[in-house]
Amino acid sequence: MKISARNQFKGRATVLHIGQVNADVSIDIGGGDRITALITSKSLEDLGIRDGVDAYALVKASSVMVMTADTPLRLSARNQLRGIVVKCQKGTVNSEVAIQLAGGETMTAIITNESMDALELSEGAEAIAVFKSTSVILGVTL
Amino acid sequence: MKISARNQFKGRATVLHIGQVNADVSIDIGGGDRITALITSKSLEDLGIRDGVDAYALVKASSVMVMTADTPLRLSARNQLRGIVVKCQKGTVNSEVAIQLAGGETMTAIITNESMDALELSEGAEAIAVFKSTSVILGVTL
Amino acid sequence: MKISARNQFKGRATVLHIGQVNADVSIDIGGGDRITALITSKSLEDLGIRDGVDAYALVKASSVMVMTADTPLRLSARNQLRGIVVKCQKGTVNSEVAIQLAGGETMTAIITNESMDALELSEGAEAIAVFKSTSVILGVTL
Repeated sequence: MKISARNQFKGRATVLHIGQVNADVSIDIGGGDRITALITSKSLEDLGIRDGVDAYALVKASSVMVMTADTPLRLSARNQLRGIVVKCQKGTVNSEVAIQLAGGETMTAIITNESMDALELSEGAEAIAVFKSTSVILGVTL
Repeated sequence: MKISARNQFKGRATVLHIGQVNADVSIDIGGGDRITALITSKSLEDLGIRDGVDAYALVKASSVMVMTADTPLRLSARNQLRGIVVKCQKGTVNSEVAIQLAGGETMTAIITNESMDALELSEGAEAIAVFKSTSVILGVTL
Repeated sequence: MKISARNQFKGRATVLHIGQVNADVSIDIGGGDRITALITSKSLEDLGIRDGVDAYALVKASSVMVMTADTPLRLSARNQLRGIVVKCQKGTVNSEVAIQLAGGETMTAIITNESMDALELSEGAEAIAVFKSTSVILGVTL
C-alpha cells in the first residue's frame, strides 16, 4: 500500500456502534490486540465496513504517544497497545520509537527528544503505544 | 495571518450539517476542491459561520498523510485532495512533502523518512493529501 | 509520570456536558487557564471523572499550533492559551516553541520551520497556543 501512515495494520472489523453521525469500529490486528477507530457513519456505509470485513487501520506516527509500562495512570485514550521497544532513534527535535506488539506487528511513534529523555526508553523495555480512536483512518481495498 | 498551521486555505463556507454537539462545514478552496471540517456547533455559532461566509481552513502539516495516486484503497478520511508533488525535503526523522492542488494552492505534509522512502515520491508525481475532518480548525477574520 | 506527551497539566476537572457518545471536560490548570477535552462518555465513566476530581490533560506537542497575539482571527479550536514565548529551537524540518502560560506552566508546540520563520517568533513575545479538544487525552492516577 502506498500511503504515508507509518502504522498500517490489516485485520477483521467489528462494528461496535453506529450512531447518527459517528461509528465505532474495532479492527483485530492479531496477538489479542484491537485498534478502535471513530469514523463517520457515512464513511462506514461508503466503505462497506461491517462485521467480518477486512480493513486497514492507519495511524500516523505523530499521533502516537508512548507510555512506560509501570506508569500508574489510567487514560481516556481507547487505544493502548502494549509491547517491547525495538527501536529508539533520535533526530534534532523529534525521536522515533518503535514498539513490537504481541502479534508481531510494530507500532511507530514520533515523540519529542525531551520526552524521549524523560521516558528513559531503551530497546527491550516494555512500553505502551497510546492513541485516540479519532486518530485512526480506516481503509478497504478496491 | 500569523498562525503556525502550514496549510491555510481561504474559501466560502457551506454548512453541511448541524448536530446537537458537532457541525460539518465544507470550505470551497477553488479548483473544485473542498475541505470538510468537523467543529462544535457552539463554535459554528460563535464564529458566525453560515452558508456563503468566507472562512479559513487550517490544517497542521503533521495531520496530513500522503497517498500515491494509484493506491487501490478507499479511505474513511473525508479530505482527499489530489495534486502534483512539488517538493520533497528530507530531515533526520521527518520529511516534508508539498502537493500542489488543482486551484494552485499547495498542501504540505510532514511524514516520516521511512514513509517517504516507501512511497518513492518525486517532484512531478501525482499524489493525494489525506486528512480527517477532525484535524481541521476553522477561522474567521475579526 | 512516564508518558511521552510533552504537555502534561494537572488540574481539577469540571464536566461540562455528557452526551450519549462523547463528553466535554474542562481541566483548571491554574492562572485562569482551562483545557477542554472531548473524550467518550464511556471513558469518563471508566476513569471516574466527575466535578472536582484531579486529572491530567495530555497534549502532544505536534497537536499544538502557535498564533501571534495580534492575529485578527477567531478560531473554532476550543483551546487557546495565551502566554510568553520562552524557547524557539529550530531543527532540520520542524521547530519547537515553548510558551509559558499565566499559571507558570509551559506549553510546547512542534511547528514546521517555515511556519516558525513566517511567525517571526522570538523569546519574550506574546503568543497563543491553539489546539482542538479532540487532541486532548485525560488521565487519572491509579
